[in-house]
Amino acid sequence: MTTTKLWQIDDDELHPLVEHYTVGNDRSCDQTLLGYDITATKAHAHMLSSISILSRDEYKQIADTLDALYDKWQKGTFVVTSEDEDGHTAIEKYLTAKLGPIGKKVHTGRSRNDQALVMMRLYLKDQLSAISAEVTTLCDAYDQAIAAAGSQAMPGYTHTQKAMPTTVALWLGSYRDAFADTLPYLTNTLALIDQNPLGSAAGFGIELPLDREMTTKELSFAKVQDNPLYCGLSRGVFELITIQAFVPFMVFAGKFAEDMLLFTSQEFNFFSLPKSMTTGSSIMPHKRNYDVFEIMRATAHSYSGHITKLHAITAGVGSGYHRDLQLTKAITIEACQSAQQTLEVLTLCVRNLMLNTKHLDAAMTDELYTVAKINKRVAEGMAFRDAYVEVKRTLQ
Amino acid sequence: MTTTKLWQIDDDELHPLVEHYTVGNDRSCDQTLLGYDITATKAHAHMLSSISILSRDEYKQIADTLDALYDKWQKGTFVVTSEDEDGHTAIEKYLTAKLGPIGKKVHTGRSRNDQALVMMRLYLKDQLSAISAEVTTLCDAYDQAIAAAGSQAMPGYTHTQKAMPTTVALWLGSYRDAFADTLPYLTNTLALIDQNPLGSAAGFGIELPLDREMTTKELSFAKVQDNPLYCGLSRGVFELITIQAFVPFMVFAGKFAEDMLLFTSQEFNFFSLPKSMTTGSSIMPHKRNYDVFEIMRATAHSYSGHITKLHAITAGVGSGYHRDLQLTKAITIEACQSAQQTLEVLTLCVRNLMLNTKHLDAAMTDELYTVAKINKRVAEGMAFRDAYVEVKRTLQ
Amino acid sequence: MTTTKLWQIDDDELHPLVEHYTVGNDRSCDQTLLGYDITATKAHAHMLSSISILSRDEYKQIADTLDALYDKWQKGTFVVTSEDEDGHTAIEKYLTAKLGPIGKKVHTGRSRNDQALVMMRLYLKDQLSAISAEVTTLCDAYDQAIAAAGSQAMPGYTHTQKAMPTTVALWLGSYRDAFADTLPYLTNTLALIDQNPLGSAAGFGIELPLDREMTTKELSFAKVQDNPLYCGLSRGVFELITIQAFVPFMVFAGKFAEDMLLFTSQEFNFFSLPKSMTTGSSIMPHKRNYDVFEIMRATAHSYSGHITKLHAITAGVGSGYHRDLQLTKAITIEACQSAQQTLEVLTLCVRNLMLNTKHLDAAMTDELYTVAKINKRVAEGMAFRDAYVEVKRTLQ
Amino acid sequence: MTTTKLWQIDDDELHPLVEHYTVGNDRSCDQTLLGYDITATKAHAHMLSSISILSRDEYKQIADTLDALYDKWQKGTFVVTSEDEDGHTAIEKYLTAKLGPIGKKVHTGRSRNDQALVMMRLYLKDQLSAISAEVTTLCDAYDQAIAAAGSQAMPGYTHTQKAMPTTVALWLGSYRDAFADTLPYLTNTLALIDQNPLGSAAGFGIELPLDREMTTKELSFAKVQDNPLYCGLSRGVFELITIQAFVPFMVFAGKFAEDMLLFTSQEFNFFSLPKSMTTGSSIMPHKRNYDVFEIMRATAHSYSGHITKLHAITAGVGSGYHRDLQLTKAITIEACQSAQQTLEVLTLCVRNLMLNTKHLDAAMTDELYTVAKINKRVAEGMAFRDAYVEVKRTLQ
Repeated sequence: MTTTKLWQIDDDELHPLVEHYTVGNDRSCDQTLLGYDITATKAHAHMLSSISILSRDEYKQIADTLDALYDKWQKGTFVVTSEDEDGHTAIEKYLTAKLGPIGKKVHTGRSRNDQALVMMRLYLKDQLSAISAEVTTLCDAYDQAIAAAGSQAMPGYTHTQKAMPTTVALWLGSYRDAFADTLPYLTNTLALIDQNPLGSAAGFGIELPLDREMTTKELSFAKVQDNPLYCGLSRGVFELITIQAFVPFMVFAGKFAEDMLLFTSQEFNFFSLPKSMTTGSSIMPHKRNYDVFEIMRATAHSYSGHITKLHAITAGVGSGYHRDLQLTKAITIEACQSAQQTLEVLTLCVRNLMLNTKHLDAAMTDELYTVAKINKRVAEGMAFRDAYVEVKRTLQ
Repeated sequence: MTTTKLWQIDDDELHPLVEHYTVGNDRSCDQTLLGYDITATKAHAHMLSSISILSRDEYKQIADTLDALYDKWQKGTFVVTSEDEDGHTAIEKYLTAKLGPIGKKVHTGRSRNDQALVMMRLYLKDQLSAISAEVTTLCDAYDQAIAAAGSQAMPGYTHTQKAMPTTVALWLGSYRDAFADTLPYLTNTLALIDQNPLGSAAGFGIELPLDREMTTKELSFAKVQDNPLYCGLSRGVFELITIQAFVPFMVFAGKFAEDMLLFTSQEFNFFSLPKSMTTGSSIMPHKRNYDVFEIMRATAHSYSGHITKLHAITAGVGSGYHRDLQLTKAITIEACQSAQQTLEVLTLCVRNLMLNTKHLDAAMTDELYTVAKINKRVAEGMAFRDAYVEVKRTLQ
Repeated sequence: MTTTKLWQIDDDELHPLVEHYTVGNDRSCDQTLLGYDITATKAHAHMLSSISILSRDEYKQIADTLDALYDKWQKGTFVVTSEDEDGHTAIEKYLTAKLGPIGKKVHTGRSRNDQALVMMRLYLKDQLSAISAEVTTLCDAYDQAIAAAGSQAMPGYTHTQKAMPTTVALWLGSYRDAFADTLPYLTNTLALIDQNPLGSAAGFGIELPLDREMTTKELSFAKVQDNPLYCGLSRGVFELITIQAFVPFMVFAGKFAEDMLLFTSQEFNFFSLPKSMTTGSSIMPHKRNYDVFEIMRATAHSYSGHITKLHAITAGVGSGYHRDLQLTKAITIEACQSAQQTLEVLTLCVRNLMLNTKHLDAAMTDELYTVAKINKRVAEGMAFRDAYVEVKRTLQ
Repeated sequence: MTTTKLWQIDDDELHPLVEHYTVGNDRSCDQTLLGYDITATKAHAHMLSSISILSRDEYKQIADTLDALYDKWQKGTFVVTSEDEDGHTAIEKYLTAKLGPIGKKVHTGRSRNDQALVMMRLYLKDQLSAISAEVTTLCDAYDQAIAAAGSQAMPGYTHTQKAMPTTVALWLGSYRDAFADTLPYLTNTLALIDQNPLGSAAGFGIELPLDREMTTKELSFAKVQDNPLYCGLSRGVFELITIQAFVPFMVFAGKFAEDMLLFTSQEFNFFSLPKSMTTGSSIMPHKRNYDVFEIMRATAHSYSGHITKLHAITAGVGSGYHRDLQLTKAITIEACQSAQQTLEVLTLCVRNLMLNTKHLDAAMTDELYTVAKINKRVAEGMAFRDAYVEVKRTLQ
């Protein structure tokens, strides 16, 4: 038996292969997103009651039923199954099962288009907030590590070759500043997408006197996204903007991981993590591996694949809804989860960073001080390029 | 409680956050791949018995236990759980639980490195074979559709503008030829990766007299992948080669989908699919949408994201094993499944393609024949460029 | 003969193949960027004079020489040649040729690292400003087109199928709103990167009492980028943030192009461009092709390749300078030029958009009004889902 | 003044902005490709004479003029300028200028579509051959380096941590095998695309009795690409297949570069290159940097951006010619040049690799031999996992 669809009236059953292909993993996405759909549905129903499409009592019943459903979703006891075309259908079916004809009224004045849009928009806002908080926590961890590092010297590298003297605090501080700078990027992105698409229906508005300001306020959006076609046009693009907002910190996390993999090698041996954060080998009993930084590096490297996918799907279609856009959900959710986990585990690593001061000190060798020698000559009045040549000759 | 690892001996427990981050969705990948691991483990045990590391009886017990395990895996009753570090561990734990000390011997002479390599290699070979078969079936479907189209005319387009007359059969034939040409690409790729990495251990070989020819023969590989470091070096690259082999047909599928979405619009209306392969709208009762081609288009467009990811991870590390490479598994499996499903559903669509001959005939308008008019003049001796100008002037 | 390098003192000539490979197209990038390098060099010299490393007179001579050089660059008469290692060297060589020993002093207190950083930073800021202005102009063009469209109806499409009635103004308005929303994204990005890296030298600062506030003010940066290692760490990332800022409008341009290619086909025929904006065919004299939208679509589709490249290079290295980062220049410049040209040409097209009102009117067929029929029933008290079923039955 | 186009007959001049945007850097691509266009044009003219559309004498004049033009192109004295719409036009204009009316006949029976297709196809074939030769040369260089390395030991690494003993020869051998395996990939790709598209005209064939077998033979193609729509459908896809063929060796080159950057750091110091292959610093006189490997790494990392772009453009359009496809030329040429240069410079580096045997020997420390200790116990009859635990306990 295949799913009953909202648009089926008798025997127009979908071929199982077509259904399987078009639905894909959409139901598992909707499982993640369902709470946001429920919240928005409640706001929509409230608004419908305010314009007398639902009675006050009907709204009350719907609201209570949705609250109970939200609860079940949070506890994991309500699951979108293959009986449901999607999460939206699951909610409508649940309402209809509980409330009969009243449940059938809740879709008035909206399409699954704006339902999906508002659900995702709420999710994106939540993700941006949660991830901002993670970045702040990470910056705190760096601050503590910087304080703990004191004035410990370490070699500075360019081209993976010893260059000039620096300190552990300066090195850690460069990451702190980098991550701190990603915060306004997140905040600005949140401000940009903070627009309510609910009420745009299928992208052409609706002839009912919907009160879009009311749902905007109830769902805590900054403003109505006015033009209904723009609501649809922004689908995928706002997702793309959001996951782009994570790019800078993902790149910085990848760079820190790369640094750590170099600096924890036996040959450098500048830093360690506690045993509980490294792994062993199934055949080499002496190994302590920094897998956590390898997964972080690979996650950072491959993060651009999410961008590639989302860009390809979104740029690939003109205005108006196309089913292509459904595939943006899974990509966005995966990118968000990947970003969040990376920040969490990086915070843990920074908090537990151990300095191998003996090796750091031993690494402060002579060649690190050639620029100091040049600058001494410059301070004495020699032209920079002449001082450079003079010092270089002494090295040969 | 966290997982017990093969390399843990007492209290070196992994921090749960690190474990969660490094394992990711690896266990669900291993669930897909476990059968191949069991098969290769059996071949490895057989070989160990041939060089007297296992007795004949020990091998017999191991083989029987692995056969039973394979059966459970196929039926879906054996599941890699969070108690297991990974699928490899799950197998060793199962053997040890069933056979005691004998189970502990099966890892002799190999590392999880070559275990993972050989498992994936067998999976890739299977995928390439299965997908070749799908392509052949698709070509047959096109052949039938071509035969059914007879000499039905259709306009040829360039720049989405009417260009010259063509036929439905020629249009379908272009796709048939395109898909047919992807077959040797698949076969060649299979030949390229048909090398047995088992016996390379952690990438540096092993001091035991392993008989690599024997496992090669038993697992039906074309040859031993000799250099143990090359075995590891090819990890990710052979996966990349494999999913690259699907690019041409994914692109052609995307193009066919794009054509169909244009040609099934009400304005063109050249073709239809049966009702059971189109979907409706939750608010617009008149709609019949070709979602199947939209998902196909989006899948084709975004397919390059898999390439981006796999390339980034693989190119991002030097020789020797790095945990980064673990992440290549999920990407590869997702790409394979996506390719296979696209071929299946496309075959279904081609088999059910309906020609709207009335609209096709009506579309054969005058402007399609201007080149014929020029060629007539050329046949009569006029220079091509002069004939072009003359015909162009008659159009104004 | 190969180039003389700043770091060569006698016979350590670079192998021509290595030189060719490592330099690549860097000189042509530096040709584009040279003006910014000259400007920053002048500010650096001014600052050096303020801390008495240059005398007031030396600075005056350097400033005048740099002004003359800037002039030559703008006129295209100063060209970075294969005699120069790069643009930075070209400037130093020019100064030394003109001023002798004084020219050799200008590199005091900086490295080519911060010289390249500050040059690129100034370029990025300029690009973000110039492109913001282009977006504003484009929005104006849409506003005029909206006004001109009046209340002209057009069909609304979902799934490339007729859905509901809409208007040309609403359709154009969705793009106007979309492009307008990309403006704060550009402004925020500019604010984010508005930090002066000059003075960070090779990434480890310098022992001279450089006045970084002074160059910051002179070059109109919002603030000093304090941590010298962060200056280098942000290289590539700030470029990436900048070209990411163009993604939303590139995607919207691609969508508009896609719409136009559909709507200018003979089958839709809703809009036209003047003859001077369409092209012909070398063999089909009747053709008028909208190549401009095809190039726009392809440019939008492929734009993510710039992101892929920049991400791969930047995420691929740890902290400290690596020559890899040189390759970020060409990618960034290409992306900026591509974005700017797309906006310009799109503005031209929107300004010249012609409505084929006869075809638009004829396209307003019955099926567009089914939702209106349902809403009428809903307004009369029927539950939405029941009204949907009733209207759907009337269509069969 | 703008360019005169083949399709212009009087006053339909293209707007300069549209012309600039649509042409882009196409003329500089055509400059690279012109020789192939000339060759194919000559074969086309020969065939036209064989079917009596050109007289034997007309063909002779055309052939001689094209030979002279080819010569000029090779010497760099014939340049496609902004007076020409593209390279195809430049050739036709040259012929007409030299031969008058005879020149106008050469476009008979073809379109710029198949002209562009055949030109690019010949280029791709040439590139695949030339690059195969480069790979063979590189393998030879590795063979020599392997022989020179003798039995020199080096540590084997996994997770950038010391793992087990290996040898320089084994490490180099892994790359040799890797590169050698990319040769059949190149050969197979060449075989796949070895099809003659000339004669497909605009994608719908032509009513003239063209002898496609004759041009196929004359241009040394393996076969006719029969279906004219497939010729166009394969545009971009065959380019994609070709640049995909370079992916494996680009990834391996990137990995070797990564290895070398690690192994040439002062901390490892296993290998060196001659001074003439490393670079210095403008401020640090002691530096010897391996920029050549950094550019190689960045080139390998970012290579997938070419794939992203080509995939996006090609998958983004349905069948029939679209101007989008023009943009595939520049991407393909850039990818080919980048691949070829990488192979050349890598060969140079491998040929000049110097072993720092003192440091290699010193690096062969105790922890590399733990697996040997386990295997000794296994050989004495202990179960592998028990031996592992026993050895691990001795390390603590």
